[in-house]
Amino acid sequence: MDTETLKKRIEVARGARKADLVIKNCRIIDVFTPRIYEGEIAIADGVIAGVSGPYEGEEEIDAGGAYACPALIDSHIHVESSYVTPEELGRLLVPHGTSTILADPHEIVNVEGIKGLDYMLSAAKRTALDIRYLLPSCVPSTPFEHAGCTLDAAMMEEPLYRKEILGLAEFMNYPGVVNCDPEVLKKLTLAMNEDKLIDGHAPGLSGNDLMAYAAAEIHGDHECGTVEEMQEKLSLGMYILLREGSACHNLRTLLKGVTKDNARRCLLCSDDLQTKTIFEEGHIDKDLRICVQEGLDPLTAIRMATLNAAECFHLEHQGAIAPGYRADIVLFEDLRDFHAKSVFLKGVLTAEDGKYLPKVTREDITPMTGSIHLKDFSKEKLKMHLPSGHVKAIEILPGGVVTGSKVVDVDLDSEGEFVFDPKKDVCKIAVVERHQGTGNVACAFLAGYGIQKGAVAVSIAHDSHNIICAGVSDDEIAFAVREIEKIGGGMAVVEGGKVLAEMALPVGGIMSDQSGETVRDELARIHDITWENLSIHKEVEPVMTLTFMSLAVIPSLKLTDEGLFDVDSFQFTSILA
Amino acid sequence: MDTETLKKRIEVARGARKADLVIKNCRIIDVFTPRIYEGEIAIADGVIAGVSGPYEGEEEIDAGGAYACPALIDSHIHVESSYVTPEELGRLLVPHGTSTILADPHEIVNVEGIKGLDYMLSAAKRTALDIRYLLPSCVPSTPFEHAGCTLDAAMMEEPLYRKEILGLAEFMNYPGVVNCDPEVLKKLTLAMNEDKLIDGHAPGLSGNDLMAYAAAEIHGDHECGTVEEMQEKLSLGMYILLREGSACHNLRTLLKGVTKDNARRCLLCSDDLQTKTIFEEGHIDKDLRICVQEGLDPLTAIRMATLNAAECFHLEHQGAIAPGYRADIVLFEDLRDFHAKSVFLKGVLTAEDGKYLPKVTREDITPMTGSIHLKDFSKEKLKMHLPSGHVKAIEILPGGVVTGSKVVDVDLDSEGEFVFDPKKDVCKIAVVERHQGTGNVACAFLAGYGIQKGAVAVSIAHDSHNIICAGVSDDEIAFAVREIEKIGGGMAVVEGGKVLAEMALPVGGIMSDQSGETVRDELARIHDITWENLSIHKEVEPVMTLTFMSLAVIPSLKLTDEGLFDVDSFQFTSILA
Repeated sequence: MDTETLKKRIEVARGARKADLVIKNCRIIDVFTPRIYEGEIAIADGVIAGVSGPYEGEEEIDAGGAYACPALIDSHIHVESSYVTPEELGRLLVPHGTSTILADPHEIVNVEGIKGLDYMLSAAKRTALDIRYLLPSCVPSTPFEHAGCTLDAAMMEEPLYRKEILGLAEFMNYPGVVNCDPEVLKKLTLAMNEDKLIDGHAPGLSGNDLMAYAAAEIHGDHECGTVEEMQEKLSLGMYILLREGSACHNLRTLLKGVTKDNARRCLLCSDDLQTKTIFEEGHIDKDLRICVQEGLDPLTAIRMATLNAAECFHLEHQGAIAPGYRADIVLFEDLRDFHAKSVFLKGVLTAEDGKYLPKVTREDITPMTGSIHLKDFSKEKLKMHLPSGHVKAIEILPGGVVTGSKVVDVDLDSEGEFVFDPKKDVCKIAVVERHQGTGNVACAFLAGYGIQKGAVAVSIAHDSHNIICAGVSDDEIAFAVREIEKIGGGMAVVEGGKVLAEMALPVGGIMSDQSGETVRDELARIHDITWENLSIHKEVEPVMTLTFMSLAVIPSLKLTDEGLFDVDSFQFTSILA
Repeated sequence: MDTETLKKRIEVARGARKADLVIKNCRIIDVFTPRIYEGEIAIADGVIAGVSGPYEGEEEIDAGGAYACPALIDSHIHVESSYVTPEELGRLLVPHGTSTILADPHEIVNVEGIKGLDYMLSAAKRTALDIRYLLPSCVPSTPFEHAGCTLDAAMMEEPLYRKEILGLAEFMNYPGVVNCDPEVLKKLTLAMNEDKLIDGHAPGLSGNDLMAYAAAEIHGDHECGTVEEMQEKLSLGMYILLREGSACHNLRTLLKGVTKDNARRCLLCSDDLQTKTIFEEGHIDKDLRICVQEGLDPLTAIRMATLNAAECFHLEHQGAIAPGYRADIVLFEDLRDFHAKSVFLKGVLTAEDGKYLPKVTREDITPMTGSIHLKDFSKEKLKMHLPSGHVKAIEILPGGVVTGSKVVDVDLDSEGEFVFDPKKDVCKIAVVERHQGTGNVACAFLAGYGIQKGAVAVSIAHDSHNIICAGVSDDEIAFAVREIEKIGGGMAVVEGGKVLAEMALPVGGIMSDQSGETVRDELARIHDITWENLSIHKEVEPVMTLTFMSLAVIPSLKLTDEGLFDVDSFQFTSILA
């Protein structure tokens, strides 16, 4: 800030000088007191100078009596889960009234390390969306799998010291915190000593274990599944990020416990969001819609998406419409549908009626390509040599990423290998390590997927992003895995030696370099084919569901490249029941 | 923070290791949701580890069912106004449940410059009270007077860069902000570019001028006199510090506008607090009492004194009872009287039943002594040579520091000099410059003081702290001023060439080196004598009232060493009406 800029802002505020832009005829949402009042917004150099007026501007826009709301903040998201790059995600989210996202780039960092972080930072500069990054705290998310990078405390120092890095992203290794894992303690104290905040992730943690987690100064949590869990965490001083993503839908449940009194530490987030969801349902605007449908008053809902988030993440002078605040403003026609008519970011009209206005330029993805490294993979590696078909299966529980652990009886051939039975809803699932050339392949069983033929493979598998594949036979699985290798990462649906559908994800094997529309359409085609040709259950999202089957920090049973993992006891477990 | 300390805290939180201290049998006040619940507080290394239990501790204290409340925060205070030094003020405030004060040391800095700040910082280290300093922003408060230091933007750089300095203290020169004074803009941008907050002071400012002030990113204000003013400022994003001091009593008035919804940006402060007030009425505990008397629910009131203040001033992990928070806890027997039974600071029992427990050691005051520098002062300098007795008088309005401007007719002798008339409630007032040896003496008239004989002089005169003296004749005034010089700064009440009462203030001429009790008793004696011997009105605080008569940032009429100042038009004005 230089004195000339400040002088201009003050003079504009006083009405002594023309603003760059005046948004006239607004119903301004004041998130502080809170209230709605009629006014006009004078903007100078991207910052709000005044909010009552009358003001004159070099440019003047009539808002037609629309509600002027602070633009929305997503408090926790993984850009990579949209399968598009940061600059493309910006194009998709801004038209929904989003100004800012708090992003944890742990997917790409699991694949590419700090080089991946640097790519995300550079790509973010190409969008008007304000993408604020936290440093992935748990890469890999557990020591029980191989990723493309192991980010230990020593390696975290340099990026954590950067001013642009707000803090440590979701500290998923909550057992490591509670049990005082030495490396975990080093990471935590590193952040504390740099005055960086530490975001959390502790599904179902409660009682003295939760106390221990909070005592480590962990700041927030987006994993609450029940009102009771939310209230316990709020009471311990944690910010609660009410999540509404493509896979996880906690918002309606948690809203039953949100009151005007406790909402001040409640925020909204998506965590993982597919392009299809964005196009069909929206982003944080959708969350506001849900809040109002569930009976929360609109101003409390808006506070969660604006001021509360800005306070939580120390985003000074954001999240409100007031003098000195960044001119991130969305015009809504009503406070029920929250249709974003116009979106101003830093005082510039950036989206109108669903359309992102700036030209999108693309960050070079070359450094992020070529990320699939298989060593001596073959069908032979899928063999299980089981002594019994009485086994534990990972059970899909639709509508979330938590899995059950189900005991099933599967058919085996004479060599102890799985034989698919169309009457039993159990298939084989394999994880193939693709970063370090370990040659690791682990197999297990998956119940509730519905697949009747072929296989589905994908090089996204949270959070290490090995190749995960579910199929009815080793032939189908091996073919699908090879296809992923061939396209340099992505998704593939195969049957009988044929590729039925696929989508390349050249950016680290986890993101497309195509538009959101292309990704949506290709993914829709993949979904349709899995549902129709492979008979996967309609209530199961066929690809994203698979991508969470490796995530050894979400209960209860998961498969990493090292084997079947019991998240509840936090150790590997036998396939045999 | 080292990993061993964190490990211990986590283990204590889990109940796997003994705490240093457990406060058992509490009703814990959770300021987050907010609610009250039964629990016990486990403390490790001065930080709260856990809040439910059961816990074991090396030491265990039974709270007997008392309310465990986060210790209280005074969001804006001038230590110097208590007339005692920082370490002594700590002794007085902590027993009332105060853990933290946000202090603006602008009185001593006006006298001694950055040397004064350094003294205050050092002295603060000798008390368990957490004294957090902001850098005085307006020294002198206006360019219309002489202080011991002129702190320009260039001189502010070094202290503002210090980590221990939280930001810029009350930016009193609001006309300078609104009118874009170049030096003011430099100071403001200096703070912004260092990410330091800027506290405010803008009594009565509203409309587009207030907008301009807020646009300069000014963060808070403690000068609201009406609910409407408070609401306007809150709505512009400013934190509102509801003030209840010895001289200014805004709390009850403003509470009429405080709601659960808007309270989140409301805080409590004292601004200026005399020892007598502390002994008789308390500190922020008194404010809580008033809040509840006025019908505010206790949890909202407590939030204002704890969490809200911590958020406003970025005091991370303070202001709440939760794991990871500093163990600053006050035990209250009820939430009506707010009698502080025990006060724990950083986990150590620091006060009990009104008594401060640590031994008080004193900072060396030598560098702060010898601050009275008069040049060629004599009775002759008090002459006014008035052509007419139809004059403006500064009118005392009891209960605040705002003055009126009243037209009065005074008697003059043949040389145009004031002749006191016991039937008219008008006396003479003089300001004698005492820092730079300018020899400046300015005189004017004071209405509503009640004085019938003698004079009262004091070397505290906000904010430049020249000598201010009110009396019935030049003889009395000159004698009183000389007495102040003789005692090295302080207060004196004189009559007919005799000193009736006095108190030395050797620390910069504004603070005593004695105990709070001594200061209280000496001041009480001074008050009694002024009321009884000099007939000063009982409803007027005879000394503090005088000390605000120079403060050219508080409406309406004031006297500096350069002359009579009209605060409303922000310029010097003639004494003649």
